[in-house]
Amino acid sequence: MECFASRDWVRRAFGRAGRASVGATFALYCALMLTSALTLTMSGCASTGATQTASADPLPSWNDSAPKHAIEKFVADVTHDGSPNYVPPEQRIAVFDNDGTLWSEQPMPVQLVFLLDQVKAQAPNHPEWKSNPAYKALVDHDASALAAHQKQLLQLIALANSGMTTDEYDQTVRDWLASARDPKTHRPYTELVYQPQLELLAYLRANGFKTYIVSGGTIEFMRPWTEKVYGIPPEQVIGSSQVVKYELRDGKPVLLRMPKLDFVNDGAGKPVGIYRNIGRRPILAFGNSDGDLQMLEYTAGGSGESLELLVHHDDAAREFAYDRDSRMAKLDKAWDEALAHGWTVVSMKSDWNTVYPAAKQ
Amino acid sequence: MECFASRDWVRRAFGRAGRASVGATFALYCALMLTSALTLTMSGCASTGATQTASADPLPSWNDSAPKHAIEKFVADVTHDGSPNYVPPEQRIAVFDNDGTLWSEQPMPVQLVFLLDQVKAQAPNHPEWKSNPAYKALVDHDASALAAHQKQLLQLIALANSGMTTDEYDQTVRDWLASARDPKTHRPYTELVYQPQLELLAYLRANGFKTYIVSGGTIEFMRPWTEKVYGIPPEQVIGSSQVVKYELRDGKPVLLRMPKLDFVNDGAGKPVGIYRNIGRRPILAFGNSDGDLQMLEYTAGGSGESLELLVHHDDAAREFAYDRDSRMAKLDKAWDEALAHGWTVVSMKSDWNTVYPAAKQ
Repeated sequence: MECFASRDWVRRAFGRAGRASVGATFALYCALMLTSALTLTMSGCASTGATQTASADPLPSWNDSAPKHAIEKFVADVTHDGSPNYVPPEQRIAVFDNDGTLWSEQPMPVQLVFLLDQVKAQAPNHPEWKSNPAYKALVDHDASALAAHQKQLLQLIALANSGMTTDEYDQTVRDWLASARDPKTHRPYTELVYQPQLELLAYLRANGFKTYIVSGGTIEFMRPWTEKVYGIPPEQVIGSSQVVKYELRDGKPVLLRMPKLDFVNDGAGKPVGIYRNIGRRPILAFGNSDGDLQMLEYTAGGSGESLELLVHHDDAAREFAYDRDSRMAKLDKAWDEALAHGWTVVSMKSDWNTVYPAAKQ
Repeated sequence: MECFASRDWVRRAFGRAGRASVGATFALYCALMLTSALTLTMSGCASTGATQTASADPLPSWNDSAPKHAIEKFVADVTHDGSPNYVPPEQRIAVFDNDGTLWSEQPMPVQLVFLLDQVKAQAPNHPEWKSNPAYKALVDHDASALAAHQKQLLQLIALANSGMTTDEYDQTVRDWLASARDPKTHRPYTELVYQPQLELLAYLRANGFKTYIVSGGTIEFMRPWTEKVYGIPPEQVIGSSQVVKYELRDGKPVLLRMPKLDFVNDGAGKPVGIYRNIGRRPILAFGNSDGDLQMLEYTAGGSGESLELLVHHDDAAREFAYDRDSRMAKLDKAWDEALAHGWTVVSMKSDWNTVYPAAKQ
């Protein structure tokens, strides 16, 4: 998803009109909050997709249309020893955006729900917040008051999500995901991942690809569950991050979360994150918004064959419909580039016969 | 290796007395230069160690002494299903310092040799350097003049190693390694890796471990050769880094190297680098100097069984002898901690029957 077009999240989050004007601090923190993603109940999360390969067709949730054909053709081409486009396994790097590409990001990115919940959860430790207008607006669901106190709200978010060790925060994310539910479907957020993408991830791995997440969301919020849900281990999750500081606490080595941004892995930051963490140029990239444009460009700019894909959210009945005019996760420039360069645009409505996995019992 | 005790590298590099006083800029850049590592001829580099496992003993270059026993006992314990200390494969993370742990770092870290060579190589593009006192001192091997112009030298190094794309720089490293030779042995630097460590890396991988480099050296200088030499792919190389910037150059997406440090992966930076890139706490860590202390502490601080090791350079005949009093890569505090906590100290002289692999024909 694309963050910087999402500055009116306060209004969206609370369903009423807010002010769109925000400062640089917000724009930065916005990347942490709004480009983030996912949820899951660690105990009852969605399958990893590995089980999806049991059928003869490894991509049964993909309709028999152009995107599926493009994927199958590409994979066959780069994995066939003898093909002029053969790519050795160690170079088969596939990168996926998370929010809006692997799971739903509407009506509000899951990490933002979590961050706001953390403010409420931390409130008992901060009696002084009771008189903070942003905190009052938050608990009162008062969008216009929140809009008027955005800066204070961001400070509260930064404070509520800092100061603990990385291990403590990891547990907080796990606990939250275990109980949080999507208000519309009442399902754990981690069940609102896209079944066709679970199949695609498993299909790529079965063909020797290494699959990565490259998200504007923070690594801390994704790593606790991506292995179980997507089959993507923590070391293959690239995201935004806060500064952490090493220290001995009562003789025990810990990493402490500081209330400061370290890296924003969005837009032009995505190729940088890929370079820093992988050091190879991907040959397949999958996104859904303008925040993924540079990642797709970078992938397309490699010397060999590559495949670039975009999810087009055009399915209001089964998920959501948003693209050029969306204020959050806009798909505009990247769509133009896709049309100009022959990138594959996947219509959720036409190309996927299933959106979400079946609910767990 | 440990960087910040190495401030007199100018004197060491040129064999005469220099001044040890340096500023913060130098201290930072020092981390880039002095904690860096390795070399290799891409065409004729050392074997990956995978071939070492052909013999019945996977660690033939290790003497039958305490460190070898400790390694074998640990690996057996964490890999034996049913052991109370069993660790599932995905959590078997092993981290290795590079300079002085996987290859030699004396008399001068290889990356520093490279960085200085780059200044000379870039000089034709900078006619103004002819009147630069640091440049003159460099080409004249005038240590006292260099000591007097350290700041200018660092500026030259930063300029000579920036401004190009990451792909161009990658090629520069490959080209340099293909022709550079260690002045004493006349061997490619990449043959001056430690044979026992090649065997250990292969042994760990054969037992389901994922092996990582965690070095103060820069990722850009290591990634071009670590897969071929150590069997460690680019995405498992964690190091210091310069800032890179994404841009379209004549429509082609590139990452441009900026003359600015991004991250210093040394000392307390090593656990941070591990967290950022892996997101799991290692269960085995191997270093050789005080710059590795926090990495070992962090590993030891995990909840399960772990193994911490240090190479002790006590073999002046076959390699070098340096520890507590060394100004470069000092082993002092980490040694005390090893003794206090029962970490394994590996004597190069007593515990390794071979240091370097046989020279390639």
